[in-house]
Amino acid sequence: MGKKIRMGMVGGGEGAFIGAIHRMAAALDGDIELVAGCFSSSPERGLITGNKLGLSPERVYPSYQQMFLQESKRIASDRVEFIVVVTPNDLHLPVSIAALRAGFHVLSDKPAAATLEGAHELQKEVARTGQLYGLTHTYAAYPLAMQAREMLRRGELGRIRRVSVAYPQGWLALADDSSNSKQASWRTDPARSGESGCFADIGTHAHHLVEFFTGQRITEVCADLQSVVDERALDDDGAALFKLETGGRGTLTASQVCGGEGNNLNISIYGEQGSLFWEQESPNQLQIKRRGHPVAILRAGADCEYLDEKVRARCRTPQGHPEGYIEAFANIYRDFARMIHDRRENLPVDSNNSVGDIEAGVRAMAFVRGALESSRSQSSWVALTPYWE
Amino acid sequence: MGKKIRMGMVGGGEGAFIGAIHRMAAALDGDIELVAGCFSSSPERGLITGNKLGLSPERVYPSYQQMFLQESKRIASDRVEFIVVVTPNDLHLPVSIAALRAGFHVLSDKPAAATLEGAHELQKEVARTGQLYGLTHTYAAYPLAMQAREMLRRGELGRIRRVSVAYPQGWLALADDSSNSKQASWRTDPARSGESGCFADIGTHAHHLVEFFTGQRITEVCADLQSVVDERALDDDGAALFKLETGGRGTLTASQVCGGEGNNLNISIYGEQGSLFWEQESPNQLQIKRRGHPVAILRAGADCEYLDEKVRARCRTPQGHPEGYIEAFANIYRDFARMIHDRRENLPVDSNNSVGDIEAGVRAMAFVRGALESSRSQSSWVALTPYWE
Amino acid sequence: MGKKIRMGMVGGGEGAFIGAIHRMAAALDGDIELVAGCFSSSPERGLITGNKLGLSPERVYPSYQQMFLQESKRIASDRVEFIVVVTPNDLHLPVSIAALRAGFHVLSDKPAAATLEGAHELQKEVARTGQLYGLTHTYAAYPLAMQAREMLRRGELGRIRRVSVAYPQGWLALADDSSNSKQASWRTDPARSGESGCFADIGTHAHHLVEFFTGQRITEVCADLQSVVDERALDDDGAALFKLETGGRGTLTASQVCGGEGNNLNISIYGEQGSLFWEQESPNQLQIKRRGHPVAILRAGADCEYLDEKVRARCRTPQGHPEGYIEAFANIYRDFARMIHDRRENLPVDSNNSVGDIEAGVRAMAFVRGALESSRSQSSWVALTPYWE
Amino acid sequence: MGKKIRMGMVGGGEGAFIGAIHRMAAALDGDIELVAGCFSSSPERGLITGNKLGLSPERVYPSYQQMFLQESKRIASDRVEFIVVVTPNDLHLPVSIAALRAGFHVLSDKPAAATLEGAHELQKEVARTGQLYGLTHTYAAYPLAMQAREMLRRGELGRIRRVSVAYPQGWLALADDSSNSKQASWRTDPARSGESGCFADIGTHAHHLVEFFTGQRITEVCADLQSVVDERALDDDGAALFKLETGGRGTLTASQVCGGEGNNLNISIYGEQGSLFWEQESPNQLQIKRRGHPVAILRAGADCEYLDEKVRARCRTPQGHPEGYIEAFANIYRDFARMIHDRRENLPVDSNNSVGDIEAGVRAMAFVRGALESSRSQSSWVALTPYWE
Repeated sequence: MGKKIRMGMVGGGEGAFIGAIHRMAAALDGDIELVAGCFSSSPERGLITGNKLGLSPERVYPSYQQMFLQESKRIASDRVEFIVVVTPNDLHLPVSIAALRAGFHVLSDKPAAATLEGAHELQKEVARTGQLYGLTHTYAAYPLAMQAREMLRRGELGRIRRVSVAYPQGWLALADDSSNSKQASWRTDPARSGESGCFADIGTHAHHLVEFFTGQRITEVCADLQSVVDERALDDDGAALFKLETGGRGTLTASQVCGGEGNNLNISIYGEQGSLFWEQESPNQLQIKRRGHPVAILRAGADCEYLDEKVRARCRTPQGHPEGYIEAFANIYRDFARMIHDRRENLPVDSNNSVGDIEAGVRAMAFVRGALESSRSQSSWVALTPYWE
Repeated sequence: MGKKIRMGMVGGGEGAFIGAIHRMAAALDGDIELVAGCFSSSPERGLITGNKLGLSPERVYPSYQQMFLQESKRIASDRVEFIVVVTPNDLHLPVSIAALRAGFHVLSDKPAAATLEGAHELQKEVARTGQLYGLTHTYAAYPLAMQAREMLRRGELGRIRRVSVAYPQGWLALADDSSNSKQASWRTDPARSGESGCFADIGTHAHHLVEFFTGQRITEVCADLQSVVDERALDDDGAALFKLETGGRGTLTASQVCGGEGNNLNISIYGEQGSLFWEQESPNQLQIKRRGHPVAILRAGADCEYLDEKVRARCRTPQGHPEGYIEAFANIYRDFARMIHDRRENLPVDSNNSVGDIEAGVRAMAFVRGALESSRSQSSWVALTPYWE
Repeated sequence: MGKKIRMGMVGGGEGAFIGAIHRMAAALDGDIELVAGCFSSSPERGLITGNKLGLSPERVYPSYQQMFLQESKRIASDRVEFIVVVTPNDLHLPVSIAALRAGFHVLSDKPAAATLEGAHELQKEVARTGQLYGLTHTYAAYPLAMQAREMLRRGELGRIRRVSVAYPQGWLALADDSSNSKQASWRTDPARSGESGCFADIGTHAHHLVEFFTGQRITEVCADLQSVVDERALDDDGAALFKLETGGRGTLTASQVCGGEGNNLNISIYGEQGSLFWEQESPNQLQIKRRGHPVAILRAGADCEYLDEKVRARCRTPQGHPEGYIEAFANIYRDFARMIHDRRENLPVDSNNSVGDIEAGVRAMAFVRGALESSRSQSSWVALTPYWE
Repeated sequence: MGKKIRMGMVGGGEGAFIGAIHRMAAALDGDIELVAGCFSSSPERGLITGNKLGLSPERVYPSYQQMFLQESKRIASDRVEFIVVVTPNDLHLPVSIAALRAGFHVLSDKPAAATLEGAHELQKEVARTGQLYGLTHTYAAYPLAMQAREMLRRGELGRIRRVSVAYPQGWLALADDSSNSKQASWRTDPARSGESGCFADIGTHAHHLVEFFTGQRITEVCADLQSVVDERALDDDGAALFKLETGGRGTLTASQVCGGEGNNLNISIYGEQGSLFWEQESPNQLQIKRRGHPVAILRAGADCEYLDEKVRARCRTPQGHPEGYIEAFANIYRDFARMIHDRRENLPVDSNNSVGDIEAGVRAMAFVRGALESSRSQSSWVALTPYWE
């Protein structure tokens, strides 16, 4: 793509797992250059991070407001083009809005905002400013997730009847797990995380995966959420029944208190003519069971001719050379960089890719809101459509 | 055990898959002898089956009533000791009651009866007659299912927080699947199958497995059942949220319209200290994920010293020699034969084994009833306790 | 098949693992009846076994010679029709020859004889007497092993280029493992086991599987055998390079000293157009990798339409109901019973089934002999053809 | 580590798969900066690549000789510090020697040289110049490969008895496969690839993995190599028996003509007390079978406390976030960058890491030579020690 896209980062200082992942993902394909950052609420710590990353000190800023102001003043060929937001959830909204208003594109960690209302506000701001906005729903960016979506959209498994998605984690299984790391502490704090814990944090990933795979929206939810570990203010576990817009049904489980589990996101989609199964921990395999046929295991690989062209283009290696989480993340960066490039060059911008859009962000928060409401009202069915219309 | 236990069979004629399985399971360990039968509603066809099985013609009966009457008249050392009931669901109740009243022990295919009321009636009759009664919930009879139960009962994974059980099948995925075999036709016919299709047929297996593994009862259910294939009168697909008696939560999915699926019953149990996973299609592995430890794969095998003694006793071969569905079924037969033997010898009868009891049968039908009621009332939560108390 | 085939057993007393397996396998399908036996070199222990099995005491014999003599005198409709030989290896030959001469068909545990010379002698006796003779190479009797053979014979994977077969076990890993069970003691004793330990015991299974799958003979071998555990007189571990008759190459590993291994027989066959993989511990899956296609997993099941008809006929259950080692063994019994039935009825006898023949037995012993010779002569290549011609 | 290490690349122009992988691996952790390159034998094509990579044109050189000369003249704080060699095999030696003589450290794709003699020459040059030299045996750089090595070195599985390593690929299965890509053409050309094809290309990876895992040297080899596809001048398939220095035995298979295979490198190591299994296509799992214990599956993850500290340090993500081939490659870059950094800072250089050294490179070529000699002499045993002493 020629000249690298210039990125600024908000959040992602020392000890923030996801910041380092974002930087590796951005670096992987050589399309993007990190040129500015505001890495920490502590300017001193931010400078340390910036220095380690080889940034010039004048582009390591003490506040995101300063950053947007100063960067805006730089000449166009030098200033950051997009801001990646990797802060705790409560800052996603204000940082994103400020960045958009300052004329930057935004790539944000999910959720788009800590509340549904915030997501709606952001949706309006994205529309108003016309800047590009993307969400990093990483799991949809694995090549075989896109392959599943393409096959289901073509109807290869017939009408979708049932979906099972589960996202069990174990890292908050004990009360003291919530204090043993930076990530845990804000995720279990309503002031920083929003009105939901587990469902906002990982339930939204599961929700997004269902909509991404099926190409359908979840329209109704019947949920049962709980705080299993005693002192927790937010849900750390829950499950829901749901309905898809064309009538398919499903179950969604999200939990962070499943002792011993890692990051076991998995999805099964059952259609009239066949079923498929994918799990994030073995991302390079997509299992397809067609009526009357042997089970087929599709494998990721740039040389796998049976994969869709757009899927192969998102593999960096031939079959048998495993790619993983960082490469999936890098697919989002590459896709978003392509969108920025095309916007800059006045080319048509194709958003049919691995980048989540603000509408997906709104629907994810609508799902969280609906699940909370359902759970509070004896698991009654709650329609989600009013929330996004 | 010395002299073989004498068995009579009702149902299980030509084309009835499950009858042949029962006979293989009964024959496997050499403890049981099939000596009489009423294999078909057609006496001619029944005789053909009896002849193939090498039964003496006078012990192949035209009706189960005749069979119980005639067998009762034989001397004790010769007459059948227990009746296995492998008819369509609608006959489980009348055959079982008639057999109990005639003084025979009964081993019945599930469900115990086609309705909850029938199950209650049978429960009373079992109590009244004092005969032994067993249900063949086959999946609980795999050695590693029992190992899971023992480990969970000892609290090895800590408090149980969440259970996910799913039973997707595909053999009724299309409308014409219901006419293409003897099994399908009665299962989709309310007159023969009862008030539920899929949930009664396989949802009960999933329900039983949850209670067997956890040693807890499912106390409340919130369900969403449907008839996916157009002309079907009964549910062929559904899912439910549920609660366990000590507060754990779960999801249960049962479907017979998942194109391409075989018999993919699987269960995950998440505890505070660890989680376990077992799937029926790979029954000789039990996966345990303990916090901070490598994943452990327990394997079935008579020589696996880390398995409980009672589990090893239910393996016929050393590790690495796969056992399967027929052997699981045979475990039930062996356990039931042992119970009959001990009863006959006036020894204490131990029912802590793989044989389902009538209470489990009642609870399974209560679960079906509760799920149907919940589904009809907008998936409201329905308590199951009133149904068994 | 109507009337049951009458079986007599030599060997298989208490503590003999394989005797119980044979009896279960013979009982499974209801085609065969055990009517006589000589279960132990100790007549008292033999009677105990016979009694437990419900045999009439006069048909429990103190010696196999007595058994063959007495049974021969019974009327044809009553006397045993075939003898199953489940003794230690050194007795396979004399028992088989005596049985054949007495007019009985023989089904023998492998190896056919403890030495190559013995196998040749037996081959002549089989030819001379015209009786049916079968070897229980169990692993070839799994349905998907037969499926692999059929596909390879049709050339579905193109010309076979390479074969890897490995059979690691761990039960003789320590010196004292050889004294801790009846099975181990004779297997490590040259007087009872023959000139080879591991290669005769399990190397022959691996050899047979290669020939069964490929439909080709192993013609040359280059081997390296050793006795790993100090005091052992016979090989307990080894590996070999080999050549197939059409030029394909392979490796064969057999070891009984691999700590922690169970019964991990596995085979990979690589062809020009694709490769296949099967492992005995997961016998209901056959993995096929075709150039340019997703990996295909064929599954066992009587209802799997993509399997060959003769394969489906060797499945007792539909897909998703696992069958195992005992069912594989039972396939051999069923096939052998069918052969006896057809012989008895003067029908053509089809031996293209799961029963090993005496020629396979000779080639297996030739392989062992060749491997020993090669190993003794610095792993030089040894041609096997002179041994069977 | 503060300031980035400056890298120059020789080879890796358009269409060269491995060049792009090297660049991604070098970029991943932000430790290394690509500042100069000679990407192609065609200066024009080289410039195109350099431009795409954002290099300043004066540091894109028409020949490696020019590059080394010009870069040497730059001031120390600006000139490249190490050269990565990603050319076809025949250039590894001259480029490496020229770079070492010009005062640069060298990181080279394997093999170190196209011939054993070349590897010896290089070994001397490394010793003479005292520059750092590393080989990218990628598969040893997966975290769990290092975990296996550490466990085996501690003797956790007891004495090693047997090793099975296999590396089946399928991309050269057909004659025309060798013309369909840049990679294939030089690999099947003796002038560019050296005296061996498959064994030099991937057999060396398998050899290295055995020595890396076991911490032992392969001392003798008995091999059978062939050119399966007709017109090929070099081996494209082969297998070998081998001996380890402490007496363990093994088999090694390497083939590029296994239709349908991807990159299926796998290794089993059998010890007295237990066995382990690892396969490159599922690199985040290490299977351990200990006598009398459940199978243990160790998983990769920075948070897996049961892993060795040095292994965890080579994971970028917590358990459940798959890492793959590029991350393994990046481990080598990170380790080599650390070595350069420490050398530059006059700190002790620790080479107990994932970087292959020149001695490993010599032994790999000795293995190839020994295998070729053995194969040419009727698979006689060939001692490798004379080749490295």
